[in-house]
Amino acid sequence: MALAQTGQPFQEEVIYLDRPDTAERIARVSPSGHVPLLRHGDLVIWDSLAICEYLAETFPEARLWPESREARAVARAVTAEMHSGFEALRQHMGMNLRARKPGQGRTPEAMAAVRRVQHIWNDCRARFGKGGPYLFGHFTIADAFYTPVATRFITYDVSLDPVCDAYRDALVSHPSFLKWAEAARSEPPVPKYE
Amino acid sequence: MALAQTGQPFQEEVIYLDRPDTAERIARVSPSGHVPLLRHGDLVIWDSLAICEYLAETFPEARLWPESREARAVARAVTAEMHSGFEALRQHMGMNLRARKPGQGRTPEAMAAVRRVQHIWNDCRARFGKGGPYLFGHFTIADAFYTPVATRFITYDVSLDPVCDAYRDALVSHPSFLKWAEAARSEPPVPKYE
Repeated sequence: MALAQTGQPFQEEVIYLDRPDTAERIARVSPSGHVPLLRHGDLVIWDSLAICEYLAETFPEARLWPESREARAVARAVTAEMHSGFEALRQHMGMNLRARKPGQGRTPEAMAAVRRVQHIWNDCRARFGKGGPYLFGHFTIADAFYTPVATRFITYDVSLDPVCDAYRDALVSHPSFLKWAEAARSEPPVPKYE
Repeated sequence: MALAQTGQPFQEEVIYLDRPDTAERIARVSPSGHVPLLRHGDLVIWDSLAICEYLAETFPEARLWPESREARAVARAVTAEMHSGFEALRQHMGMNLRARKPGQGRTPEAMAAVRRVQHIWNDCRARFGKGGPYLFGHFTIADAFYTPVATRFITYDVSLDPVCDAYRDALVSHPSFLKWAEAARSEPPVPKYE
């Protein structure tokens, strides 16, 4: 989503997970085994946040971070918190754009994470979100980092307060997300292995 | 270490962990419960990487990121990898500046993490480290993020190749680190609770 936001042409290589050739295909593009990975000329960047910072620097006209220093600092804090944390959400409410699992995964830890996400969304929308539907008004890296959570809230049918409800809907109706979801829906089914 | 590198005056509040008043003291300074936390005027930033990015932007003369765009992208990737990963090191070789636990914690996962750290250190030192003893020559945020690992390698007596050996020594003889270690040594002993 951040790369699409730059408006630059790019070529995407999708590697399906849990397939017999997954490890081999990851190794072919990423010697360290880390994905996602961005190649730009000879430069290889292998972490999602480092990729986003690089895009923000290289394509400033995309405004991938908020303009004001204060908003940018908070945007980086909420992004970094998602980058390194929310283990309970990852573990109990795994991302799966093609599934509906209402009511599943609601452990106390996962629900505490849901409350924390709602606190962050409300705080950013109230303090910085006046100019648009996203956390800091226009679309930024912080929104890209919270989009997977928005899809989990739909997959697991998690009820949200009205502010978060509207923000989740803004994320999952973003054109880049719709393209991403379309690609996920067209993934060939996982073959059965014995 | 990154804040000290700016040369700006600052006031530090140390909160000892595993004490009866730990949770209360964290809540007093950080409503979200997240530490470390930087206050600069009215601005509150609560994630280590977001704090470092803010310092790098606000005090460019401290050169907290490498100058070249390529080196800076790689510095952010290795920093982000430490920010979100190396779970096995955190779990099996916990940081403890006052302990010596030679040979402990060497699970296969922890040793794979040690190999990955050594790969990163060698790669950065060879490609970008010509101008000084640190990963990118002069001291940057990447070095601050790998200093806790350097102390773990000492605590758990992990053998390193010569390049990593020298780099680890450079980290643990950095003036800011020595001050930090001194503060840790002067921490009052943890009282026993029943």
